[in-house]
Amino acid sequence: MKLLNTDTLEEAREKLWKETADMELETCEAELREARGRISSRDIFSEENIPPFDRSTMDGYALAAEETYGAGESSPVFLHVCGKVRIEEQAGASPGPGEAVQVQTGSMIPKGADAVVMAEYTEEYAPGRIVCYRPVSPGENVIRAGEDVYTGERIICRGQQIGVGETGMLAGIGIRRIQVYRKPVVTVISTGDELAGAGEPLTAGMIRDINTDALTAAAESCGMDVRAQIRIGDEREKICHAVQEASGNSDIVLISGGSSKGSRDFTEQVLEKVTGNVFTHGIALRPGKPTILAYDRERKTVITGLPGHPMAAVLVFRLVIAHWYRRKTGMDEPLSVPAVMGQNVSSNQGRETCLPVRLIRSCEAESNPAETAAEGQDSQKGQDGYTALPVYAKSGSISALAGADAYVMIPRDREGLKKGERIWAELL
Amino acid sequence: MKLLNTDTLEEAREKLWKETADMELETCEAELREARGRISSRDIFSEENIPPFDRSTMDGYALAAEETYGAGESSPVFLHVCGKVRIEEQAGASPGPGEAVQVQTGSMIPKGADAVVMAEYTEEYAPGRIVCYRPVSPGENVIRAGEDVYTGERIICRGQQIGVGETGMLAGIGIRRIQVYRKPVVTVISTGDELAGAGEPLTAGMIRDINTDALTAAAESCGMDVRAQIRIGDEREKICHAVQEASGNSDIVLISGGSSKGSRDFTEQVLEKVTGNVFTHGIALRPGKPTILAYDRERKTVITGLPGHPMAAVLVFRLVIAHWYRRKTGMDEPLSVPAVMGQNVSSNQGRETCLPVRLIRSCEAESNPAETAAEGQDSQKGQDGYTALPVYAKSGSISALAGADAYVMIPRDREGLKKGERIWAELL
Repeated sequence: MKLLNTDTLEEAREKLWKETADMELETCEAELREARGRISSRDIFSEENIPPFDRSTMDGYALAAEETYGAGESSPVFLHVCGKVRIEEQAGASPGPGEAVQVQTGSMIPKGADAVVMAEYTEEYAPGRIVCYRPVSPGENVIRAGEDVYTGERIICRGQQIGVGETGMLAGIGIRRIQVYRKPVVTVISTGDELAGAGEPLTAGMIRDINTDALTAAAESCGMDVRAQIRIGDEREKICHAVQEASGNSDIVLISGGSSKGSRDFTEQVLEKVTGNVFTHGIALRPGKPTILAYDRERKTVITGLPGHPMAAVLVFRLVIAHWYRRKTGMDEPLSVPAVMGQNVSSNQGRETCLPVRLIRSCEAESNPAETAAEGQDSQKGQDGYTALPVYAKSGSISALAGADAYVMIPRDREGLKKGERIWAELL
Repeated sequence: MKLLNTDTLEEAREKLWKETADMELETCEAELREARGRISSRDIFSEENIPPFDRSTMDGYALAAEETYGAGESSPVFLHVCGKVRIEEQAGASPGPGEAVQVQTGSMIPKGADAVVMAEYTEEYAPGRIVCYRPVSPGENVIRAGEDVYTGERIICRGQQIGVGETGMLAGIGIRRIQVYRKPVVTVISTGDELAGAGEPLTAGMIRDINTDALTAAAESCGMDVRAQIRIGDEREKICHAVQEASGNSDIVLISGGSSKGSRDFTEQVLEKVTGNVFTHGIALRPGKPTILAYDRERKTVITGLPGHPMAAVLVFRLVIAHWYRRKTGMDEPLSVPAVMGQNVSSNQGRETCLPVRLIRSCEAESNPAETAAEGQDSQKGQDGYTALPVYAKSGSISALAGADAYVMIPRDREGLKKGERIWAELL
């Protein structure tokens, strides 16, 4: 069996991880705005408080909370308004006993005050004189200095992707530039005598080159920088030359096609020649068996021979290279969604299966939750959640990838998945 | 009650939708590579088949399936190899009775053949002579012309976002340029005397301007083009001038701050003056009540007064403006994830609540599925899925937004959510 020569997905991932232990990702500085979607290469700590001072969250009157104790509709507390703090001002006068300071939403709370009575629970009965109809407790309607973010707090972790919330938080503490991982430079090489580019005539026997564009999109969508796209026929010397050059100027080289065992499959020989360090000669994965992994130790380049079939090439990229890059940068795993299988699916034992699925939202439970609960064993079916339907396709299919929302991994030791079984689907 | 003046979220969305009925989004042409992440403005139909011809999915021998009927280990079928088709070649000789044509994975299937016997179920016993040990059925190991994508098939719908699969499919049918929606041009205006930019000293009473960056990130992350960022104090004339100008050169203007009812809240007056068409004066939504919606009919610009609190501003942008843009372009709703509430949460009746949550993966079910099933009513708790934990924060908080994975909408007529209740969380 050819399977004897292959690694499991887990083994291949571990080998790649260990082989590239000495490969350090470079970092660069990015402006806050261009940092969106990038990955922080450092923990970031705040050097400011948010808010910078105790702040009112309401329009009203700042005072010592104890001034209001016992206040009620029929027993209002009488107060003297001893000042006013506009929102951009330094708070002045401290309210003493029987006093309050008028504040706006966002105003600084003056010394001596620890709470704010909302304006609607007060009434001005004479200039500078109010009655208050409700008690407040200390801290009420006040956000304390540093309550949102405190000086010294870690606000971004290494590996955290900069999204909308992170951008807001960095702006809030006055940080305009951060260190992010430099995007790894990728060369995409597609091999095959049968490949025609767009615009080229599709003569008999030729097919359009899908992998160059699909792998470029896959690499870019996980934060890589595809600098070169190369299409070559099945000519060993030309492939070898292209891989040599790519290894010198890229961090990652993605070659597709030519990784099987056929007479014109040169990838393995080429990678052996260029790196002398091919460590995975196939993965016990369906689709994706013809996957070759190598590491050019001298030039610190990861070189991958991916399957020729577009869906397999993209899935292996996701499962091996994108996974490795996430681990290397400290990023979280991509989001998975719990779902229930909508059909029985069989799989080969001995090979892990990556099954593309569509996720269909099922909402029956809302109509009658009581009935659902009573169904016992079958309760899953009626519940509000996702049903995963396999997107079947022969291995060359690209439409299956476009039609799938996610994929489900079926372990090696399983014969398949049963209809109604709960699974996790990883989003594509 | 001020609530009498407000719309529900649904009403505000419908008003915005109807007001902007005459606003047509412009489109532009994009290269396949730069189209990634963009939204197709048209249905796209294939003008080619994928694959373009019947193709072998295996290395082996193409023949008429009926030639192999009855073949077995002890009763092999004898065949004459009458030709060979390399993968980039036009298929030549048709196999007749008792004949087969050698093919590779990807080779064109010759006329007269309708199946491929895998090489491992054959043996060459003399040059050009093989025995076949297994029967194949018609279509086996063959992918038919157009089976993946057929000529005339709709492969992309209007409103579909171009991802990895779509890119591959377009490349597969030789399309290099597509029509996408032009990114709407956005101006972000932040108002408030208390706002300090980064680098500016944070004198007493001042806070950092978060909204300019957070709203820019939010707009860019939903595919908009933020051309101008403006910060202004609470000065009516200046705000009016900035909004006038922005309305002339933008599709969408996002103003934050100044949308409440305070003495320095000028947004509503300004929008009334600039557009004469303010149709929403507040939304019964928590957070997000001080939201003002206007449409400049003459210049076809959507102008929004958003809350000053960063989290509220970003959430209202998502719930109103991003929602409108998705509907306008025909995009799908953002992905929601089913989850179980991890805590009781109370909410105000009469106002819909948008509650930011963290999603925690709970995997107890895997350990003992039988026990879980037996628990009946409680079975949800033990199931493999997400638990949603509310991210509590006072309304000015930005850290809450950074700490949340998703949000949950609590309807107006509910007093809250119960621990253990199943909900849908919309991903942030």
